This record gives sequence, structure tokens and C-alpha cells, in this order.
Amino acid sequence: MCQLLGMNANTPTDVMFSFTGLATRADEHKDGFGIAFFEGRGLRHFVDHHSARASPLAELVKHYPIKSDNVIAHIRKATQGQVALENTHPFQRELWGRYWVFAHNGNLVDFNPRLHAAFKPVGQTDSERAFCWLMQELAKAHCDVPSIAELSATLAELMPQLARHGTFNMLLSNGQALWAHGSTHLHYLLRAHPFGPVQLSDEDLSVDFARHTTAQDRVAVIATEPLTRDEPWVAFAPGELKVFVDGAPLAR
Amino acid sequence: MCQLLGMNANTPTDVMFSFTGLATRADEHKDGFGIAFFEGRGLRHFVDHHSARASPLAELVKHYPIKSDNVIAHIRKATQGQVALENTHPFQRELWGRYWVFAHNGNLVDFNPRLHAAFKPVGQTDSERAFCWLMQELAKAHCDVPSIAELSATLAELMPQLARHGTFNMLLSNGQALWAHGSTHLHYLLRAHPFGPVQLSDEDLSVDFARHTTAQDRVAVIATEPLTRDEPWVAFAPGELKVFVDGAPLAR
Repeated sequence: MCQLLGMNANTPTDVMFSFTGLATRADEHKDGFGIAFFEGRGLRHFVDHHSARASPLAELVKHYPIKSDNVIAHIRKATQGQVALENTHPFQRELWGRYWVFAHNGNLVDFNPRLHAAFKPVGQTDSERAFCWLMQELAKAHCDVPSIAELSATLAELMPQLARHGTFNMLLSNGQALWAHGSTHLHYLLRAHPFGPVQLSDEDLSVDFARHTTAQDRVAVIATEPLTRDEPWVAFAPGELKVFVDGAPLAR
Repeated sequence: MCQLLGMNANTPTDVMFSFTGLATRADEHKDGFGIAFFEGRGLRHFVDHHSARASPLAELVKHYPIKSDNVIAHIRKATQGQVALENTHPFQRELWGRYWVFAHNGNLVDFNPRLHAAFKPVGQTDSERAFCWLMQELAKAHCDVPSIAELSATLAELMPQLARHGTFNMLLSNGQALWAHGSTHLHYLLRAHPFGPVQLSDEDLSVDFARHTTAQDRVAVIATEPLTRDEPWVAFAPGELKVFVDGAPLAR
């Protein structure tokens, strides 16, 4: 199974600690990794078809404090599509003058939608097909960039159409919000004042967030499995779609 | 003035040497840098709004031998658009299931085309507007991915329409070919057997390509100004469009 990591914050925040936790799980997920960082409208997008354990790029991400308000990362265990750069999540497209980034954990069976619009897959994965279809359907549903609430309503209609083809845990962001859909395995955690020391689940590494934050900071972390001990991770219900803005879930 | 670097090769080749030469010119081009590497259909795309002299990402690119058949790099001195990630070249879009990458040196005045199709700028530069317009016009001219020759014919019609708005030196690639258009400053160099030692123009660094190549290897390097001494760089004529495939220019 692939592993997802998402982060949405109200102030630009680095993900070195969480990404280190994710990368320790790369032994069984050796078929590439990728991570995308929004900085306002801009985007940094790193992909490597080497394991997050071995890649010099992953080393850079663990040690270069890139501050971002929306992050999506993925480590891959290939199910559909060969191990190649073009099949490495997250995927990126532009719509309405905004970059969109998508990563998927799961496996869609018999999913061959008609892609008749401006979004075509470059690689061979079910995941990129799903992303292109989502972009196409969003573009059809709205003629210009809609509000977060409108986008969420459209996505809530589209998710079940994908999820009926198989497991569909996914993260999606346009830099303004982060949408997360849980199908089988997805958890989220809200971190806010008062911050304290936190310990990774899989590695002997801890950080005291109180030393790196202010009382106003708020961060939502979304991951396939909880990354830390002793924090109140919440499991997504099957079919649940959540929208995170400024480090907190939006009520819908 | 910004600086462009392109590479097209018949075998995956790294650009550590050429990029090092480019980065030494980053003192006067401190407003960001970017580099995109095609690996087959896949793409690695690094951008940083820090100078190529100071950026940890640039250090990675200088020392991590990423082998690619098509590379486009750019170091920026801002003319239009603030210094921000979304204004950093090269820009990336998807068309016909292929990634396209574009970088521009120059300045387009009064260039505000109608962008009525699927390609909208994310940032504020004249360059990204030009790229979106090129993608739109290519998409209108061909209903599916055409041959390199057909693409080149369409691009040859489009280039003058951009160049009449100002200086338009540009590099464009879809991973199959690299197109270069010269307006004021652009040079190319063909390296092939027998390879020998080469010395950078701006830095006390040399490399003996004979030790890193085979007799079949062929590489075209395109740059704003010649990067090396004692090699036969050729200047583009004003308005000249060249297409490089497998490390050599295609006759048109």
C-alpha cells in the first residue's frame, strides 16, 4: 500500500519532521516518492522514482526547511503502471490559473473514463486517470474558479463515482485548501496551541513544537497511518471527504 | 537579462558541468532559477526563487547526476512580475498527454492575448502568458499529438507573432524534441565524437568528456552566451527557430 501525507497550515510551516516519519516507511514503498509544496500560488514539485530512503532528493526535503501552507507527499508501492517518473505521485495540472496537485492511495479497477477535455494522463496509472477525470469534471461544473464551498460540494458528488471502482484515499490541493477523501486508511490530526514535544511512531526522533511555533499557529496533518505517538489522530470514516483551510477542517 | 540553458541528447546525459557554468552567472541574475529534466515521458522540475548561487536546490543539481535527454534551465533577472515562485521559469503544462516545458529570455511589451482555452497563467509574467498562448495555439492547430515536423511548422508560424512584441529568445520541449528560438542572444553547440577536454568560460573548471562518453553520444547545448572556451558555438540569427532531436538539429 502507498502512503500519503498532507499538511495544511495557517502559517507557512515546514514538514521535515513528518516527512522523516513518512520516509521511514519507505522500505516497503520503494517505487518512488514525491512531494509538492505550495508557496502562495507557486509550487515546488519534487518526484523521484528511487525510494525515499535512498534518494538525494529525499535527503534535501528532510533537511531544507521549505515553508509551505499546503503540502502533499506520497511514497509509492506500484500497483498499476511501471516504476517510472511519469507514474510517480503527486501529479500536477493547471486549472483556472491555479496549480492543482493530487495523490492517491488505493487501486481503481475498470476505471476508464472518457477523457474528452484538456486533461490527459502522461503515465499509465489509475491514479493519474482519476486526477484527469476530476479536473475535467471540475472544469465542466464551474466556468471560473469557484469558492472553496462550491468546489467542496462538487467534489463531494464526484468522490463516490471514483470510490465505487475500488480503494480511493486521496489528497488534493490548489494552494487555497486541502481536500482529503478517506476510503480505507486515512487519519488526520489538528495541532494548535499549546504545542508540546512529539515523538515519531517509527523512529527515535522527537521535536518540541513549542520551540518552533507561536500561539496563533494551527496545522492539520493528514496521513495514511498516524505518524506520531500520543497525539489524538482521528480516522476518516469510509467515504468521508474533509476540507482543510488555514489548518482546520471547514464545516460543510 | 535572464540566461537560458538547454540540452538535447541522444543518450541520457547529465548537465552538472553546464549548469555550474550557468550558475556562476547568477550574481547578476539573483531573482530565482529553475531547471526541468525530462526522463522519457516523465519530468523533474525544480524551481527556487533564491539565486542559483545560494540555493540548496542548485547545489543538488550541480552534484546529483540526473541523466536526461532534454533539459531546460533558466536563471532569472526579473523584468515583469514580482520575485515569486509562480514567476520562476521554466513553466510546465500538459498537452496531448505530454508535459511541455518553456523558458524565455527577453521582454514582451503590450502582449495581452485572449487566452480563451485551457491554459491560464498562474503568475504575472509576460513569459508565462506567451507559453499559455503557444499551448493554446498548438492545441487549436492539431487535434492530437502531431509529428515533430508538423509541430515545428506550426511553431515557425507562431514565433514571429510573439517576437514582434519584443525580445523573444526561448526554449521549449515536450521530451521528444527541443525547440529554440533566437531573437537577440542565443547560441548552440554540437558535441560529438571525438570528445575532449573542455573549459568553462567563467570559472576555473574543466571536464574531459572523452572519459564520460561513448563514440555514439551526441549532445546539443543551447545557451544565451557560450558557456565554454575553444568550442565552436554558433549564434542564432534573429528570428531563427531550430529543432533539436537526438542531439542534432533537424533540417527543416
